[in-house]
Amino acid sequence: MTACPAPTADLLDRLAHLLGPSGILTAPSDTDPYCTDWRALYHGRTAAVLRPADTAELAQAVTLCAQAGVAMVPQGGNTSMVGGATPDDSGREVVICLSRMNRVRRIDPLDHTMEVEAGVTLKAAQDAAREAGLMLPLSISSEGSAQIGGVLATNAGGNNTVRYGNARELVLGLEVVLPDGSVFHGLRRLRKDNTGYALRQLFVGSEGTLGFITAAILQLQPQPRATEAALCAVADAKGALALFAAFRAQDPALIQAFEYMSGAGMDLVTRLVPGASLPLAEPAPAYVLVELATPRANADLRGALEDVLGAALEDGTVTDAVIAESEGQRMALWKLREEHAEAQRRAGASVKNDVSVPVSHVPELIDRATAACAALIPGIRPAPFGHIGDGNIHFNLVQPEGMDPAAFLALDHRIMDTVGAIVRDLDGSFSAEHGVGRLKPYMMPDWRGGAELATMRRIKDAIDPRGLLNPGAIFPPDTGNPARVTPDA
Amino acid sequence: MTACPAPTADLLDRLAHLLGPSGILTAPSDTDPYCTDWRALYHGRTAAVLRPADTAELAQAVTLCAQAGVAMVPQGGNTSMVGGATPDDSGREVVICLSRMNRVRRIDPLDHTMEVEAGVTLKAAQDAAREAGLMLPLSISSEGSAQIGGVLATNAGGNNTVRYGNARELVLGLEVVLPDGSVFHGLRRLRKDNTGYALRQLFVGSEGTLGFITAAILQLQPQPRATEAALCAVADAKGALALFAAFRAQDPALIQAFEYMSGAGMDLVTRLVPGASLPLAEPAPAYVLVELATPRANADLRGALEDVLGAALEDGTVTDAVIAESEGQRMALWKLREEHAEAQRRAGASVKNDVSVPVSHVPELIDRATAACAALIPGIRPAPFGHIGDGNIHFNLVQPEGMDPAAFLALDHRIMDTVGAIVRDLDGSFSAEHGVGRLKPYMMPDWRGGAELATMRRIKDAIDPRGLLNPGAIFPPDTGNPARVTPDA
Repeated sequence: MTACPAPTADLLDRLAHLLGPSGILTAPSDTDPYCTDWRALYHGRTAAVLRPADTAELAQAVTLCAQAGVAMVPQGGNTSMVGGATPDDSGREVVICLSRMNRVRRIDPLDHTMEVEAGVTLKAAQDAAREAGLMLPLSISSEGSAQIGGVLATNAGGNNTVRYGNARELVLGLEVVLPDGSVFHGLRRLRKDNTGYALRQLFVGSEGTLGFITAAILQLQPQPRATEAALCAVADAKGALALFAAFRAQDPALIQAFEYMSGAGMDLVTRLVPGASLPLAEPAPAYVLVELATPRANADLRGALEDVLGAALEDGTVTDAVIAESEGQRMALWKLREEHAEAQRRAGASVKNDVSVPVSHVPELIDRATAACAALIPGIRPAPFGHIGDGNIHFNLVQPEGMDPAAFLALDHRIMDTVGAIVRDLDGSFSAEHGVGRLKPYMMPDWRGGAELATMRRIKDAIDPRGLLNPGAIFPPDTGNPARVTPDA
Repeated sequence: MTACPAPTADLLDRLAHLLGPSGILTAPSDTDPYCTDWRALYHGRTAAVLRPADTAELAQAVTLCAQAGVAMVPQGGNTSMVGGATPDDSGREVVICLSRMNRVRRIDPLDHTMEVEAGVTLKAAQDAAREAGLMLPLSISSEGSAQIGGVLATNAGGNNTVRYGNARELVLGLEVVLPDGSVFHGLRRLRKDNTGYALRQLFVGSEGTLGFITAAILQLQPQPRATEAALCAVADAKGALALFAAFRAQDPALIQAFEYMSGAGMDLVTRLVPGASLPLAEPAPAYVLVELATPRANADLRGALEDVLGAALEDGTVTDAVIAESEGQRMALWKLREEHAEAQRRAGASVKNDVSVPVSHVPELIDRATAACAALIPGIRPAPFGHIGDGNIHFNLVQPEGMDPAAFLALDHRIMDTVGAIVRDLDGSFSAEHGVGRLKPYMMPDWRGGAELATMRRIKDAIDPRGLLNPGAIFPPDTGNPARVTPDA
């Protein structure tokens, strides 16, 4: 994809001299893992993976590459769901991985902030906050591998967004190496600072196309002193939404997570995943996993949960419910939610749609998309689940039983387009959490075209005029048919 | 300031034809109120004030002006503290005021969102949310006049930021007319949408230099079912901060407001403002006004307040406290805080500093800035107050008793520079809430220079290449000495 020149031997020599032996990988056996994305949709090549030790080294390496006009692909934990950090197969793009910059620089308890480098895994950052008696309120399934730089570059979401917002809302300050090697020193830990454009907000979610996020100041929260979780049987998504509204009317600040699961998805989990069983008397058309939490001692959190559940059982919104009586039971409830992806994998080929709509439209999304997909492929098994309180549903579809997986996957774009048309009709988004990456740029002109995409391009051209950073991500090629890649199961 | 041509008679004719008689003002007696800012620091002139009725009219008017190369100054309620919306005295800039676009378009209770046009006052938006049983959690002193467009263009803060964040955090979607008259249709009410750059975050806080915000989707909250307020006497800012930390450790979601007031400032209020009296046995070196609120019924909010206050009285952090026992008492406590500006006005000339530092540095800021100003002008009366939980202190200084006000004001920039140097040493900001406007661009190169200001300029040049929008705001002139304006008292 990149029109940039390959790095010359001289450039590679200079980079090796700058970064030292542990700072550059050139053998294909070493670089290969950096050239394939987590979903194995993209298989690229690179002449070098650069692994700078600190911001100064990175800035010098970027300056050298920029002077040579060489394209650079930033990479963190390489957990993108949309091929956001994979070089193309020309071998001309260098990968720059910040995993060696992995220090938690400081935690300020009075400010409720932490300063972390890009290469710290989200899990390590959570742990450091916890050891300081605080909480970093961001949690995603890949948190053991995903690194802060990528988490911020993609504005990660996850289970606690309903309470604390996306990654974007946690960022007070950023340090960024720009495409020319200059450094934006924005590591301020100010809650209020109205001095010009909010550059940090532009870099968050820009998927490595505008700069390398090297460090960040993140806002922390107190640790919860009490947590309660319940699994609730409901008639449908409308019932799930009514339950959400009831909990939110009580106190949105208590809702740590509010997850929807379809009856079909739950059936796959309990049948196919060892150790997963439904703790209710009988299966239901749909389920909610609600978790309440509060840092306040003696807040009668159990009472708060029972108040809403009791009223919902009485008025029929909830038909059955179980409250976790121990940490072990709470983890067992979460297992039912977290094993949805694994259960779908065991059930055969599946197609994923990470979509969002206004919260009020979720029931209509699920009803219409379920019917449309069934009409398209008889026997298809829709298993939607996810963050209903954010309007974010992972509308995944499992192949009909007995169908050839390859035949099913050959229809992937017809399925995605079917779901997409309904999402669009409901004023939704084709990518709620995962971003655009290399998988979805072809959708940008249709969904975000006109003045919106034109303005994004202007910004890209202003900050990275030669298009050196993460070519192929977010923006569709200017000419010709935008590329569509067929995802694996 | 603007190098753009004056509007021709032909352009004004076409604008008058487009906008109709109620859409354009040209008589100086009509346009004068739009040409002076709220603090009366700037006195400009304009050939026309345009008042479009809707987004389509605005887009056409902007197109006409852009085609003629005429500069445009967006204006909302004209309540800027930094001359953010005043045309220069060349008469060549037209003012575009969106106050006729004043509809609350819709409120979606299930989505917890409202769609409002730019010309709705913040107060009217709050009222509309309240009538729908919800709360727009943004409150500033000018809310009766300030309009949503300006509130978002300046990323307003205020008393509830400690709980709900700045205006920025409330914005889900925006509609913006760009400098060429094209329209960014981003009125999405999605809580999750990772499809390219977060343009709305760029326009929020851009002070009308990148586009006209015409409408927004704002996130709402449930109304509190209980509110408790207390005035607490503390030894100093360190004590105030210790009290804040105690309330936050209990539950940050309960802290609706947490305001610091100096003993000197309170003394001015109780001596100079009729009807203001201290409800404590004796004056203290410093005070905190804390307000807790929760939407949860039966949350024992009074108990939560008393728990923290009791412990703080016991360990000496708080030396005395009074809890409001009625709405009238609560309003009386707030009057002590809200009359700070009026009391300072009655005490003579004063100099204002809207600064922020990391929360942990507030005590050092107050101590050092108080000492430094006293050394500069013996008898000067520092009366700092404000949002200590956000690290945002209005470090205002009242003239010494008996000093000539003009002589005091002649020293305004020495005072501001003295405070500024300490703020900067503490990694703070020279404008926490009020923005840059025309008053503070000269500070940008020193405080936000290097790659940060260069990147802002690149963005400005990319989106508004001819510099037609709000010339003179945010960016210092490229050449010559940046202009400094001396504020009035």
